[in-house]
Amino acid sequence: MAVVKRIDHVAVLVDDLEKTLAFWRDGLGIQMSHLEDVAAEKSMVAFLPVGTSEIELVKPTTDDSGLSRYLEKRGPGMHHICLEVDDIEGMLENLKQHGVQLINETPVTGSGGKRYAFIHPKSANGVMVELYELPA
Amino acid sequence: MAVVKRIDHVAVLVDDLEKTLAFWRDGLGIQMSHLEDVAAEKSMVAFLPVGTSEIELVKPTTDDSGLSRYLEKRGPGMHHICLEVDDIEGMLENLKQHGVQLINETPVTGSGGKRYAFIHPKSANGVMVELYELPA
Repeated sequence: MAVVKRIDHVAVLVDDLEKTLAFWRDGLGIQMSHLEDVAAEKSMVAFLPVGTSEIELVKPTTDDSGLSRYLEKRGPGMHHICLEVDDIEGMLENLKQHGVQLINETPVTGSGGKRYAFIHPKSANGVMVELYELPA
Repeated sequence: MAVVKRIDHVAVLVDDLEKTLAFWRDGLGIQMSHLEDVAAEKSMVAFLPVGTSEIELVKPTTDDSGLSRYLEKRGPGMHHICLEVDDIEGMLENLKQHGVQLINETPVTGSGGKRYAFIHPKSANGVMVELYELPA
C-alpha cells in the first residue's frame, strides 16, 4: 500500500513577503534557501528549509488567482500541508475507495518532474492537503 | 544563536474525531501512535507520526475552552504549527529583540518535561506558532 513518508512543506499565504520574512528568517533564524517566481501559481514563493521539511511563504503576484481570492477572503495564514508519498497513483486510488473527494483525480506534473495532487478540504476536516511524489 | 531543528507537529482542530481519523488513518494510511485526554487543554488528541513530525488531531472536550471557541468561530482546520528549538529561552529573547509579540513570555513546562511557548499570530502573519524544547 502507498505510504506517506514525511511532511514535505507547510504553505503559508502572505500579503507582505518582506514583513513575513522578517519574522521567519530574522526572528526565528530560519535561512531562506531560495525565492522563486512560480508563474503557474501566479505567486512569489520563499522556501525556508526546517529539518526534513520546508516552510513555504506564498505571496500572490496578481489579483485574479485562486490564491489571491483566498487571501482576500480569509486573510494571511496557513494555507495547506504537503505530504510526500511513495506512490501517488496508489494513494489517490485508496483515497477514492474511502470516498475522499479529490481536487486532482490524477497527478499533475510540476517543476522538476515532481507529481502532485490536491485533496478537497471538505474531505479532510477543513485542511487543504497536497500530495507529492518526488522523481526517483 | 538558538536554532529551529524541525517541524515537531502540525495541529488540526476537529469537531468529529472518528470522521477525521477515517481520512488521515484509513484514507492516507497514517497509523495513530496514541490517543490522549489532555486535561490541561480540555481536549482529546490523536497523534499520527509522519516521518520526523506528527499530525495532531485535537478535539475539544468541553464548550468553555479557547480551543472550542476557536472551533466554533472558524470551523475545523489547521490550528498551529509547532517547531522544535534547541534553546527556547534564547529563541524567545531573539524574538523579543525583533519586536515579536509572544503569548508566553517565558516557557511553560508541559507533560514529559518539554517546555513550550506560543507566539502571537499577529506577529507571525496570521499563523499560530508554538515552540518546543524537548528535555535533554
